[in-house]
Amino acid sequence: MMGLMQQRPLLISSLLEHAELNHGETEIVSCPVESGEHRYTYADCAKRTRMLAKLLLSLGVEPGDRIGTLAWNTWRHFELFYAIPGIAAVCHTINPRLFEEQISYIVNHAEDRFLFIDLTFVELVERLIDDLPSVEAVVIMTDAAHMPATTLSNALCYEDLLAGQNDAFEWPLFDENTASSLCYTSGTTGDPKGVLYAHRSTILHTYAASLPDVHAFSAHDCILPVAPMFHANSWGIPYCAAAVGAKLVLPGRDVSGARIHELMLKEGVTHSAAVPTIWLDLLNQIESSGKGVGQLNRVCIGGTAPPRSMIARFHKLGVQVRQGWGMTEMSPMGTFATLKRDMLDWPEERKLDVLVKQGRGAYGVQMRIVDDEGRVLPRDGKTFGLLQVRGPWVTSGYFRRQDSPIDADGWFDTGDVATIDPHGFMQITDRAKDVIKSGGEWISSIELENAAMGHPGVAEAAVIGAAHPKWDERPLLVVVPKGAPPDKHELIEYLSAHVAKWWLPDDVVFVDELPHTATGKVQKTALRDRFRDYTLPTA
Amino acid sequence: MMGLMQQRPLLISSLLEHAELNHGETEIVSCPVESGEHRYTYADCAKRTRMLAKLLLSLGVEPGDRIGTLAWNTWRHFELFYAIPGIAAVCHTINPRLFEEQISYIVNHAEDRFLFIDLTFVELVERLIDDLPSVEAVVIMTDAAHMPATTLSNALCYEDLLAGQNDAFEWPLFDENTASSLCYTSGTTGDPKGVLYAHRSTILHTYAASLPDVHAFSAHDCILPVAPMFHANSWGIPYCAAAVGAKLVLPGRDVSGARIHELMLKEGVTHSAAVPTIWLDLLNQIESSGKGVGQLNRVCIGGTAPPRSMIARFHKLGVQVRQGWGMTEMSPMGTFATLKRDMLDWPEERKLDVLVKQGRGAYGVQMRIVDDEGRVLPRDGKTFGLLQVRGPWVTSGYFRRQDSPIDADGWFDTGDVATIDPHGFMQITDRAKDVIKSGGEWISSIELENAAMGHPGVAEAAVIGAAHPKWDERPLLVVVPKGAPPDKHELIEYLSAHVAKWWLPDDVVFVDELPHTATGKVQKTALRDRFRDYTLPTA
Repeated sequence: MMGLMQQRPLLISSLLEHAELNHGETEIVSCPVESGEHRYTYADCAKRTRMLAKLLLSLGVEPGDRIGTLAWNTWRHFELFYAIPGIAAVCHTINPRLFEEQISYIVNHAEDRFLFIDLTFVELVERLIDDLPSVEAVVIMTDAAHMPATTLSNALCYEDLLAGQNDAFEWPLFDENTASSLCYTSGTTGDPKGVLYAHRSTILHTYAASLPDVHAFSAHDCILPVAPMFHANSWGIPYCAAAVGAKLVLPGRDVSGARIHELMLKEGVTHSAAVPTIWLDLLNQIESSGKGVGQLNRVCIGGTAPPRSMIARFHKLGVQVRQGWGMTEMSPMGTFATLKRDMLDWPEERKLDVLVKQGRGAYGVQMRIVDDEGRVLPRDGKTFGLLQVRGPWVTSGYFRRQDSPIDADGWFDTGDVATIDPHGFMQITDRAKDVIKSGGEWISSIELENAAMGHPGVAEAAVIGAAHPKWDERPLLVVVPKGAPPDKHELIEYLSAHVAKWWLPDDVVFVDELPHTATGKVQKTALRDRFRDYTLPTA
Repeated sequence: MMGLMQQRPLLISSLLEHAELNHGETEIVSCPVESGEHRYTYADCAKRTRMLAKLLLSLGVEPGDRIGTLAWNTWRHFELFYAIPGIAAVCHTINPRLFEEQISYIVNHAEDRFLFIDLTFVELVERLIDDLPSVEAVVIMTDAAHMPATTLSNALCYEDLLAGQNDAFEWPLFDENTASSLCYTSGTTGDPKGVLYAHRSTILHTYAASLPDVHAFSAHDCILPVAPMFHANSWGIPYCAAAVGAKLVLPGRDVSGARIHELMLKEGVTHSAAVPTIWLDLLNQIESSGKGVGQLNRVCIGGTAPPRSMIARFHKLGVQVRQGWGMTEMSPMGTFATLKRDMLDWPEERKLDVLVKQGRGAYGVQMRIVDDEGRVLPRDGKTFGLLQVRGPWVTSGYFRRQDSPIDADGWFDTGDVATIDPHGFMQITDRAKDVIKSGGEWISSIELENAAMGHPGVAEAAVIGAAHPKWDERPLLVVVPKGAPPDKHELIEYLSAHVAKWWLPDDVVFVDELPHTATGKVQKTALRDRFRDYTLPTA
């Protein structure tokens, strides 16, 4: 028997309608790519977004069409986040930091009909456009006064186009499972894969991400999302902010510590979200300036795990740290590290033991760890296994690919190896492909690396599995030394205080530098290639 | 084009699964109807709920069957809240405070196959059972030691039945629009009407009700729901608590101020939800005991609007007040009064001006006010009109009734008259049927009553419309005096300082007492009947 409740579809347009009616006076402040500052309200924004929707329709955009964006976090990008899905088209955010051939691949794979780009990216698109046959026109996100000279044959001006529209427009209703946005993952191997979000998944993610134990977003907040809108929709913040009526500060292109700090103090920012690199820069800025944190009361740190010392430094400033873990495939929210009731009275160091973990799943995210044969492993905080996730904002497949990333029961393999403790806190111990499989047992490369990084003679460290005739693989520690290389045996002796004896590397190699990916992570594949034929002394 | 996200249905069983895995150690404390206290954890609860589901199946319960409950807020009732919908049956909570003929009507209209009842209600059901042909058995929610002697021919013992089960059970997956729970409204006119909640509507309501600007539920909380589980599912708290992993304190039958205060201090309650009558009793208890509020940091007040003085008294104790407004037809959450960012620095009195309003709609609740012809009225905080609501946890119809309570666009008429201000705050000014229609203009009976109640000679006041040859209706003020009745003209003179001149009552009548409903509201229908033939001096 079915219930008798209303069947309104969960649509992204309803978020901005809500903000307009209930938070029409609340501000969205942006740093334009051009210069200066831009301020307007949700009421202004909703009006312009309706005009933008009409503009898109007048350009011939149809439901399901992909519209690409190459843009920073600004009010115009925010408008596109609502106008494009609002008419059932797909907002395809493109990461401008990818290699140019990857950008071309992505635009062509998505078959984007239009590109909306910031001034920053005009030259980039000029170089690529001849290889982007699906693109009918490029809309430059600026006004007439700032339109650049360009070789693009069909370049349009955002503000000029908008000026030709009025806002007499009602958002259409359609199936809540309709695609809303597209974001390609930049995997280290293979072609980028497109994650195709839906209206329903976005709305459910918005509710869950705003909960008190996740971002805790409310109408008290002034949110500054440093996380780019081309990285999993700025972790969902553009949608959450409208849902709760929070003031938004969109920093544009300059996300240096000095600039972010200035904006925080000036605008009364209460919450911000960024990767550890940004936070390190900002922490140095805050501490050296002596100007304090203003109204900032919490930060979300994601992308990679923050060091324990970073969490402690924020705590000393009176700022709560909320480590978040997720994936593009998870919209992106997976887990958040916030304390439970019984932990609130714990001493600081014991709290940090919890907060360095990746956190608990919000309601809606199911997690489990399994072994190589798919057997579910215990949630004891010690056993580690392949981390799998499931839920209404987890991907079920990639755009235009036949192979399914989920198993018959709907579990998505994250590619991470993790522990889950009895309180539900998950901690990633390694990437599945980086774990060292020694005689059927697993050794975490990350834990070994973290231990090695604690040695005063080590500048950077990476651990890979080297072939071994008896154990299949044994750990090889590759070290960039600080100055003169430390003694190998002394280094291994040092490690023995931090990890199990059978985890100790069979050898140490010193190198001048390690290979890195574009986002700064050690490129383990390149390292494994380099040491493919390395013979361990124990072999 | 459809998105590529997972299609797991939103089911109530997933809430308890989440709590078991992530908050297995968190406690649910109850005051049993029998005596003493009962403590267990979400892990224990989840296990017993699986056993209960198997028990229901063994009794022959089928999907869609209605299972009635007559019970206080305890752990066994909580188990039923999950076990019954978990197997796609319908948890029908019955308000034991209704008249007996209404209870019979409701059970018969729902065709409940089983009743689960607390010891308190054995005699009640003994009196009614002969007129409840659909009821196959009555399960008494106690253990063998406390089973009463009863004339019920098919009385079963909850704990005995449960002891025969094991917990090897997987919750089934089914359509998220499946009916989950049934709650009859006790309208002042006509037969009670059944609101049939769905799994989807319940989960969406759970997310929205837990948001920071609503209840702000987290794993830091210890929640004591005084609001009964038979009143719109205790305002959704049993589901929210599991979603966020909050400790729960279920007070059972005794909800006196003294008992609630004792529980608060003993268990570390941080949040509680109740009607103003309960809060008045508790406030007196807190203030006279000198024992403080313990960890209590906020209360939800609903059911009827709290007086301004009550909000101020809580503020003095350091406790935030969150007035909530809703209806059984809204699951029940409609609006919550929490301040916005710009209001945080306001002086106390100005804050109270906002907090006495019924509040802003959480994202998901759409509201508007319309006039008699259905024209949408402005959100200016002054104009008042019929309040209509829409959204995924608002009813679309009543159980087994053909007439639809919603219009073609899905708007549900609340029967209230309200204003909405530009910040989104809604304030109820009257019930639509109580508003006085004077020459085509509306006069709020509630505002007149509140003004009259401020006069020192008035103990209680009610305003109804009396027939008038020229204006159709004019206000008649009916007063229960404090001691000797005040002078009529002096009383009306007093009112003229508080309301528009054309709102002033045409006459004042003094009475010994006013008729009240079972829930303590003035029974305007009875009052209108009594003064049906009253001739105003102005007529």
